[in-house]
Amino acid sequence: MNLQYPSRLLEKAVNEFSKLPGIGSKTSLRLMLHLLRQDMNSVEQLSQAIYNLRHDIKYCNTCHNISDTDICPICSDIRRDRTVICVVENIQDIMAIENTRQYNGLYHVLGGIISPMDGIGPSDIEIESLTERVGNDSEIKEIILALSPTMEGDTTGFYISRKLSQFNVRLSVIARGISIGNELEYTDEVTLGRSIINRTPFEHKQ
Amino acid sequence: MNLQYPSRLLEKAVNEFSKLPGIGSKTSLRLMLHLLRQDMNSVEQLSQAIYNLRHDIKYCNTCHNISDTDICPICSDIRRDRTVICVVENIQDIMAIENTRQYNGLYHVLGGIISPMDGIGPSDIEIESLTERVGNDSEIKEIILALSPTMEGDTTGFYISRKLSQFNVRLSVIARGISIGNELEYTDEVTLGRSIINRTPFEHKQ
Repeated sequence: MNLQYPSRLLEKAVNEFSKLPGIGSKTSLRLMLHLLRQDMNSVEQLSQAIYNLRHDIKYCNTCHNISDTDICPICSDIRRDRTVICVVENIQDIMAIENTRQYNGLYHVLGGIISPMDGIGPSDIEIESLTERVGNDSEIKEIILALSPTMEGDTTGFYISRKLSQFNVRLSVIARGISIGNELEYTDEVTLGRSIINRTPFEHKQ
Repeated sequence: MNLQYPSRLLEKAVNEFSKLPGIGSKTSLRLMLHLLRQDMNSVEQLSQAIYNLRHDIKYCNTCHNISDTDICPICSDIRRDRTVICVVENIQDIMAIENTRQYNGLYHVLGGIISPMDGIGPSDIEIESLTERVGNDSEIKEIILALSPTMEGDTTGFYISRKLSQFNVRLSVIARGISIGNELEYTDEVTLGRSIINRTPFEHKQ
């Protein structure tokens, strides 16, 4: 769409906004015209929140989670189990796992995944710092790899497992199997095959 | 989704952003994490553009189009035909019509449409100012109603036609008929019926 904007302010805002992934110029225009109808204060809040987020955010020195402080709330929480580290690709993964309320250990955010196709190698993500962390902290007993079950996830997991083989820590991966609530017949065959190989003893309460 | 955010800055930004229509908290989180990966300058540009838009925008004194100046670029363009005013609901409509490059007159933005269901009456939109404009400017010869072919659009058009009946101006509405490129059989019967009633002489070049 090659639109003629009646205002350069509007054009600038629409252009900046449509740089966001998944926001086209039509959606952007609709949202900017919506903002024009909101009161000044709430638009200021939005503008300020975006600025503050980028300007003031910190990354946890230990686990690379985002944080308002140098050490993130999870790493500084004394009630958490310091013997387990769950390795994830990004911050959304931490939020997803925290949301399950099934995990009480620490995390390590790689900030990406090994992907030769995208030019991302082991040195581009936080693997070195994970190795150091495990090497320096004798409290750590287990590393859980919670990476996506993709080629890239598996490659990254394999690389990490080799790096950590020098240390006396248990390495585990999150279970792969059929999704709860899914129909068996619609599950893909690789997943179904793995869920048979990795079957667990039947318990009355799953 | 009841997420635990690792950062209050992130939480604030996600919340502010997801107030935008059609942006849920998951999309908002994804976009905010995207912004965290952008350089400071481009995030500042976005934040500033949103602020400036709301803070500095003006509305044209004549036609109520948005503008950076007191009179919008269309109203102040001496090459435009000052004898015709096209009445539209909102600014997007102006942009859509301008985009066709088929119209060279002026506009009048109602800023809404009469809709008793939503509590919007004739005095809530810019009908009074249109009447004044037509009354004060003897140059104006024609008013084109370019409103949506809905109940609300028709009501608004009817109201305007009554208000303008006191003046010596021609009143027209944009043509309604089958869309160009549409299959005849899938056109709704009201539109198809109207397109037969309002048929135009066949021309070799449509």
